[in-house]
Amino acid sequence: MKRYTILVTNDDGIYAPGIRALAEAMKGLGKVVVVAPDKPQSGMGHAITIAHPLRLTKVELMEDVESYQCSGTPVDCVKLAVDKVLHKKPDICVSGINHGANHSINIIYSGTMSAALEASIESIPSVGFSLLDTSVEADFEPAKKYARLLIEQLLGEKLDKHFCLNVNIPAVPDAIIKGMKICRQAYAKYEEDFEERKDPAGKNYYWLTGEFVNFDKKKDTDVWALANNYVSIVPVQFDLTNYTLKDHLENSLHLDTKSFKTR
Amino acid sequence: MKRYTILVTNDDGIYAPGIRALAEAMKGLGKVVVVAPDKPQSGMGHAITIAHPLRLTKVELMEDVESYQCSGTPVDCVKLAVDKVLHKKPDICVSGINHGANHSINIIYSGTMSAALEASIESIPSVGFSLLDTSVEADFEPAKKYARLLIEQLLGEKLDKHFCLNVNIPAVPDAIIKGMKICRQAYAKYEEDFEERKDPAGKNYYWLTGEFVNFDKKKDTDVWALANNYVSIVPVQFDLTNYTLKDHLENSLHLDTKSFKTR
Repeated sequence: MKRYTILVTNDDGIYAPGIRALAEAMKGLGKVVVVAPDKPQSGMGHAITIAHPLRLTKVELMEDVESYQCSGTPVDCVKLAVDKVLHKKPDICVSGINHGANHSINIIYSGTMSAALEASIESIPSVGFSLLDTSVEADFEPAKKYARLLIEQLLGEKLDKHFCLNVNIPAVPDAIIKGMKICRQAYAKYEEDFEERKDPAGKNYYWLTGEFVNFDKKKDTDVWALANNYVSIVPVQFDLTNYTLKDHLENSLHLDTKSFKTR
Repeated sequence: MKRYTILVTNDDGIYAPGIRALAEAMKGLGKVVVVAPDKPQSGMGHAITIAHPLRLTKVELMEDVESYQCSGTPVDCVKLAVDKVLHKKPDICVSGINHGANHSINIIYSGTMSAALEASIESIPSVGFSLLDTSVEADFEPAKKYARLLIEQLLGEKLDKHFCLNVNIPAVPDAIIKGMKICRQAYAKYEEDFEERKDPAGKNYYWLTGEFVNFDKKKDTDVWALANNYVSIVPVQFDLTNYTLKDHLENSLHLDTKSFKTR
């Protein structure tokens, strides 16, 4: 039987409870190796570190799991893990479990999903996990169970090298979770507003505030699945080309710029 | 005749030559308003500022162009511009002209394209522009011309509210540019490596190095267009759902987790 290599990373940092939960969930499925940021990197998007050298330090995280902390971003962690720790591509990369939701449009802002997308760009099948709970006492047990169930299945499949999933787990007791559901990314987002205040010197400053609004009322989205107590699974890709618009523009835009003048 | 409102932003900061070139290119097409970061924000990905208040300061950038610098990221600039400067959605948002390429996979790492994608998420048609030249003496004149030609055309069209383009301009004299070409995003990326060095204390550190490799040999990609002296235009979308994989997984994954056990 093949012994799988499973790379575990995240964006909340190596000492976050979520990555410990994810590494524990992977134990027994193969050789588990953790390479994660040495500090929280939420909101770093798909940043890479070019202007600074990186540090990579072996740490004791838990029994039977080789673990390293890295001074860079989640994307750096994936790159360094392949090149300097594993010296080969792992069979799968799992990212998370993020402390907070990454469904709908939030995938674009998410460090957890950046690490997963980076792995997928590097031809490593990958899955990002996020729990809909930002509280310190968040219970990762149901999320651990579904991470295990899903990765166990996927390791038995022949996966496309760019395979990538965005998985979100509702913050409810396991007994209430109805199962897993394959979804599309909802068009749901924060409707932002800025609160204008004055500092002691009388100058304005602005705080971002906002309310999450789901503009996408169909039942095949991640937002619907989560609201209905399903674990949502959105298969994702890094090709952002809008092919419908591409066909349209090829027939409607004037592209031969040699022949026309600006106003 | 309708007077258009054109929002200009970037990720290199309000004092970068590229945003001045873009604002100049837009002059005469409508009311041009600049809201851009007060310092370079390259590599910030799609970050938003939640933990700090934001500052927004009116500055003198050029004649006839209302300009503001913002202490936040490119995404923050778009949000603040709509909410606190324009008090309405502009007709179009243009981002750039970036000092360096944002074709192929690089769209995912790009602050320039994050601003454009953010506008598109906010239902503002948008276009990001990048010049394939990172040198201080980069010549923005050809890029200005194509930005003008393109936006002039688009303002006359009925655009989808989520319309978004990623435009790259080759760093060659205008006489050599063959025209504009609608493309798809190439699967081309940096093949990374890390150079391992030792610091004076004998500890390892790593520098990212890499070589750009195009794995995508077809002639309909942005990388092909640029190598052949075309301005590349990739229509982009923020829905990352992989619909092919979605259909496949719906029929192959075991989703009813109540009925099965982990190993």
